[in-house]
Parts: sequence; C-alpha cells; structure tokens
Amino acid sequence: MSAGQLNSSAFQSRWVLAPSYCVALAPAELPAGFRCGGFAAGLKGGDALDVGVLVCDEPGCVSAARFCDSGVLAAPVVLCQSECDLAGLRAVVANSGNANAATGEPGLAQARLVQHAAAAELGLDPRQVAVASTGVIGILLAGEQIATCLAGSAKELGPGGASDFATAIRTTDMLDKQLALSVELPSGTVRLCAQCKGAGMISPRFATMLCFVQTDAAMSAATADLLLGVTVKRSFDRISVDGQLSTNDTVLLMASGSSGVVIEPESADELLFGEALDALLRELALRIVADGEGAKRVGRVVVRGGEPVAVDAVARAVANSPLVKAALFGGDANWGRIAQAIGGALPGTAPLPFDITIEGIPVCAGGAAIDFDEAALSQAVQRDQVEYEVRLPGTGSETECFFSDLSYDYVKINAEYTT
Amino acid sequence: MSAGQLNSSAFQSRWVLAPSYCVALAPAELPAGFRCGGFAAGLKGGDALDVGVLVCDEPGCVSAARFCDSGVLAAPVVLCQSECDLAGLRAVVANSGNANAATGEPGLAQARLVQHAAAAELGLDPRQVAVASTGVIGILLAGEQIATCLAGSAKELGPGGASDFATAIRTTDMLDKQLALSVELPSGTVRLCAQCKGAGMISPRFATMLCFVQTDAAMSAATADLLLGVTVKRSFDRISVDGQLSTNDTVLLMASGSSGVVIEPESADELLFGEALDALLRELALRIVADGEGAKRVGRVVVRGGEPVAVDAVARAVANSPLVKAALFGGDANWGRIAQAIGGALPGTAPLPFDITIEGIPVCAGGAAIDFDEAALSQAVQRDQVEYEVRLPGTGSETECFFSDLSYDYVKINAEYTT
Repeated sequence: MSAGQLNSSAFQSRWVLAPSYCVALAPAELPAGFRCGGFAAGLKGGDALDVGVLVCDEPGCVSAARFCDSGVLAAPVVLCQSECDLAGLRAVVANSGNANAATGEPGLAQARLVQHAAAAELGLDPRQVAVASTGVIGILLAGEQIATCLAGSAKELGPGGASDFATAIRTTDMLDKQLALSVELPSGTVRLCAQCKGAGMISPRFATMLCFVQTDAAMSAATADLLLGVTVKRSFDRISVDGQLSTNDTVLLMASGSSGVVIEPESADELLFGEALDALLRELALRIVADGEGAKRVGRVVVRGGEPVAVDAVARAVANSPLVKAALFGGDANWGRIAQAIGGALPGTAPLPFDITIEGIPVCAGGAAIDFDEAALSQAVQRDQVEYEVRLPGTGSETECFFSDLSYDYVKINAEYTT
Repeated sequence: MSAGQLNSSAFQSRWVLAPSYCVALAPAELPAGFRCGGFAAGLKGGDALDVGVLVCDEPGCVSAARFCDSGVLAAPVVLCQSECDLAGLRAVVANSGNANAATGEPGLAQARLVQHAAAAELGLDPRQVAVASTGVIGILLAGEQIATCLAGSAKELGPGGASDFATAIRTTDMLDKQLALSVELPSGTVRLCAQCKGAGMISPRFATMLCFVQTDAAMSAATADLLLGVTVKRSFDRISVDGQLSTNDTVLLMASGSSGVVIEPESADELLFGEALDALLRELALRIVADGEGAKRVGRVVVRGGEPVAVDAVARAVANSPLVKAALFGGDANWGRIAQAIGGALPGTAPLPFDITIEGIPVCAGGAAIDFDEAALSQAVQRDQVEYEVRLPGTGSETECFFSDLSYDYVKINAEYTT
C-alpha cells in the first residue's frame, strides 16, 4: 500500500489500495460548486437530523445514478427513474426514518411533493432534484412535514455541511461513512467526496444503501455513467451484511466541473480518476460491512475457477451463510461450513474438487480435508479481517465478496427495530 | 382436526392434520420385523450414545431413499448412492458427532469400513446396509472406532430400542423427534414409526437432516419410492432453519411386510397410508423447525399466484430472511421485511402488486400499505406459531414454507460449535 499518513487513516481496510496520487481531506470539505446541510423534520422524533439536502450551483453539473433491482422498489426510486433527468441532476433530498417503500401511489405522491418543494426552494426544475429515503418499510412518508422543514433551507446550505448531511441520512449506522480526497490528475487536481449510509438489509446484489458522490471535475454524462457503473460493481455490489436486498438502494455521482479539470474519455485522467473513485467506493462499501448491524469482524471471500456463474454463486453463498457468519463472529475456524456453502450453491455437481485456504493456510484440497497447523489457524481467525480463498475447477474467473459476521447484536437490533 | 387424545399430543403443530384412522403409540414401539439400539463409540466423548443401528429381520424388506443434492455430498451419502441396494435395504448404521463430509477418498473408505463391519455383525450383504453420519464437517470419521463398537451389538438390538437409536443420532437437537402410529387401513392395521434428527443447517431445498421410517406394511419398492418422494416434498423439503443445505441429508423408508397387510398401487390402502406417512413426516419436519437452533417461534408462509417459480422463490426468500426471522423472534409485526423479501426474490418485476396477510389480518394490498388494527396484529405475532400469507399476481400456484426464528441462541450455538 502506497498510502501516506492521511490516506492510511482514510482507508481503513486492508483490502483497499489507496492510490498514491490521492490525499485525504477532512470529509466535510465538499468539492467546489456544492453546498449541503442536514435538517430535522421530526421523522425520527425530537431534534434528530433526518433530512439531508445537497445542491450543485453549477448549471452544467452532470450526474449518473444506479438503483437496486428489487421487485418492490420504494417510491423515491420509482420517482427518480421516471421523473428525473438522471444525467443532469442538480440536487438531492434524502431522508432517514422512513423508507417510503410498499406505499403505492400515495407514497409516490408524497415523494413528488418533497421533490417539488425542494425544487421550488432551490430554484430548480423538479426533474433536476433526486429524492432518496431510508428507514422502516410500509409506512407512508410524511412529505408535508419534510416540505415544511425545507422552507428556508436553501440559505442554510454551505460548503462545509457534509457532516450534517451525512448524519441526516443515517439509520442504524454507527461508523462514519464520509470520505473526501484530493486527486492529483495529469490535467490538474480535483476533489472527490462521498457520504454514504448502510448497516442492515445489505445484500451482495447491488448495494443496499444510499451513497452520494460529488466531484468538481468536469466530465460528460456518459463518462460519469461509465465510471459509476464500473466502480459500483466492484464495491457496493460485492458486500453482504445479511443477504437482504433493499427496496431503496441509490448511488448518485454528481460532477460540478468547477475545477476546470476535464476528464476526457479514454485519457490518463479518466483512468486515474476511475481508480480514485474505485478506492473511495470500495472503502465506503467496506465501512458498511464493518458497520454491519452488530458486526465484530469482516470477512473477504475470493473465489477462482472456470465458470463465472459458479464463481459468483459460491462467493455469494459463503458471504450470506449465517453459519459462516456466526463462525466468523465466534472466531471459530470451522471451515466445514465453507464447504457446506460451496455445495449448497452448486447442487448436483458432486463430487466437486475444491480447495479452501483461510488466511493463507490451506485446509481443504480437492474437496477433502488436509492436515494444517490448527493453532496457527485458530489465531488467524481471531483477526478483525479474515480472508477465505476458494478454488473451483477451471481457471479464468475470479470474484470476491465482503461480509460481516452474525452476532448477538444483529439479532437484538433486528428483533427490536420497529417495536 | 379430527385427532383423538393420543393424536393431539403426537401432532403438536397446528399445520398438521392428524388422520382420524391413526392412533399414536409410544414412539419406542417399532413395527413388527424391526430391531434397533444406540451405542457409544466415543465420537462424542464419554458414554454419550453416538451410533444407532437399525435392522429388519424380514428378508423381503423393501426400502426407498432420498438424499440432498449438494455439490459437496458427504461420504455416507456417496456410499449409499453407489454401493447400496436402495430398494432392498435391511439395516442402517447412523452416527452423530462427525458428518464425514469433505473427507474425500479416505472418508469414503471409513464409511465403507463401517458398512462392512455392520454387515458382518448382522449377517447381511454390505449392499443391504445403509450408512448415515451427522456432525462436524471436514474431519475424517474414525470408522475403526465405530467398527469396534459394533462388535457384539447385534444381540443387543431389540424392538424397544428406538429411543436409544433416536438419541444416538442427535447433535444439537433439543426436542424429541420420534413418532409411532397405528394406522387402520381397509385391509388391516399397520404400524408406522420414525426417528429423525435436525436442528441446524436446515434449508428449504430438501431436508437437511436424517430421518428413518419403518413400517410393517408390505409394499413394492416402487410404491415405497413413490410414497416417500411425494411426502418428502411436502415435509422436509418445505422447512428452513437457516437456509443452509447440508451435505448429509438422508431419509430412508423401510417396509418389513411383517403385518401381512399389503399396500397395492392405487388402492384405498395406498391413499390412506400415504396420508398417514404425510402427517408423520410433516409433524417431524415441523419439530425440526420448532427445534431450530435457539428457536422460540415457528412461522409458516403460504404464497399463492400464477407462476410456480415465483411462488416458490418468494416462499423460500421469506423463510430464509434473517430480517423476517429476527422480527419473528422479537414478536415484531414489521411486515415491511416481508415486502423486502418478496422484492428481493423477484428482481426486475417492479411495480409488483402483492398482498400480505399476517394471522388473517391484511396489512398490504396491491403492493401498498393499508390500515389495520395494530394492537390486534401486535398480539397475533406474539403467538408460538405465526402464519404469513402472500398473494402474487395470477392464480393456480400455491406453496408453503415453515421456518424458525433467528435468536441470540442461534448465534451462540453457531459461534461456539467446534471450539
């Protein structure tokens, strides 16, 4: 890892390489052209911040977006997909305390009410304003309450408001999920900043969370879309807390262009900016896993083999197995559960010759147990981050999933969530 | 329910109808023609029973078997499939304390060693002896230890040994999973008896457990296979503790014919015997769920709609969701998690008009929240057994899954299993 002092603290996971040309900034420092803030609409009760507003003052701002593909899409996701210019977004209103999902047409009307209130307050076209929600599913959003809260908010937005914004979009999150980088590109220096939330209902099939990314670099909407698509697949698409796809996943990238540095397609700038964005999103994705409800340890499973579908199925099966997760929590080197998950993911393929290595220690070869140093393995699985490698027959395909453990606190948090 | 006094105590689940022509017997009373016992080979340490032996003394005994379809099949399953006459089994040796899975050729050799030792002790051909194992995955079975224990065991087997046999095959099981019925058929009265184990690594894709069923009815191997196939699909194939397919699932039906009552194909006897077998296996399957590691409550999800694949995917997604399970444990009426699981099971189908009813109380219609009596619902989800109904678009398909909750004790049991 080539990270300097600042990068080391910004990039906490051993599985993210901090690019040498990036310097971490205080996370509340937004790139030029952006302002934001957090407000209390009373959705969470009391003075808790529960509405975040982010706006870009550059009329030429371009954007890109990704959403989950659940069959039960929340109203804000439906609204973004049907009534927003996703390549030209200028603002976002995101609330916590209510997911506004499974709320039908009334939910859509409430989301629209929020979108239009924000557009009026910010002097924008409603199509330029994205909405996002997170919280309990199945309760109609009190849109009027948010609209009231938004009145007069525009003048309170500032370039240093990212922390309040980030706080306002949290639910059960415990860890801070903000990052800001200064990225030195051949054509000049740009900033890259993101605020993210997510701790439960996190599945490795697109992220189950909200993430808002801002940069002052200039780029076309096509470049923004390409870069976001590739980096989301390598970050939020590869994590699991509980294998449960959410109804509300939203990732938005907005580029103000304020720096004057232009990211041209297929340039060195694009490559290096993409790598910085990749590191940023992977670090945030790993913070979601580390903050997985009740989590104590984080696991990474790397699967190699000949068939992409099989490699992916095994990685997700291991990452989602409550047995593997409980063993990770207990610091238990029970690799038989990895074998079980492999078999469960590939029915009808027995006898399957697979290898398993944990923290570099081979424990199973050709589908059968082998001798290993039990004391060394016992010690290795006590680490905060544990790596599992699985080799299936064939070569050419490789994937990974990051996952949290399954703890008493996950049960506690999810047994008592609404009551 | 038409059950009498004895049936009421034998059939504990509200979701199993006890046939009126069946009377429950003491579960240790084996049907005529069978003897069994439980022994201590030291696999579990100390004097704990860990090897069960069951034998049928009728040379004309017929049998049928079902196994899981994991890509990682345990050695005893591979041995049964490749080196047994599954339609003419006369004996079973089943051990707990070690699954003999992911043990490769050496594991197969150990399983064969046990099979041959039992055959010699019982005076049978090895192909007539099935083996089954349950316990930790990835450790070679000490076959010699079991063979030593089997020496002289034949004379200790008896018609009243079912309780010892049932004890010997348990791992983390807490609830008793034995049942014996007297079944009054048009052609005469037969007995039906079963011993079952299973509490963790239980997935709704064939049972993740062992179950041994004996009857003194006479039938062809084809009839035995037909009846077992149909009833396994309605019982062990529809339950989930943790959605984790095992490597060792085995269900064996053995018919001694000792009663002289013949079950002819497509007869009233076959229909009624099949219904009794169905009730027996469903009751045992539900005991596995009730005994799901750390479980406090049992849920049933019934899904109706037009597409069998979608109906099945939704039922399994709800049954396997740790969020739904944690809410069940907490007595939390958080139906939004049912909506989330539905959406996650059917990506790309939004907007999906679905209905959700919990304990007869409609909470969601056409994909959107509706008003309901919150106090009544809160009370309903405190019951020991909670029923969820989901309606998807279309008609003609229906399925169900039974599932346990997710409790602190599930985590405790599985964080500390091997260490």
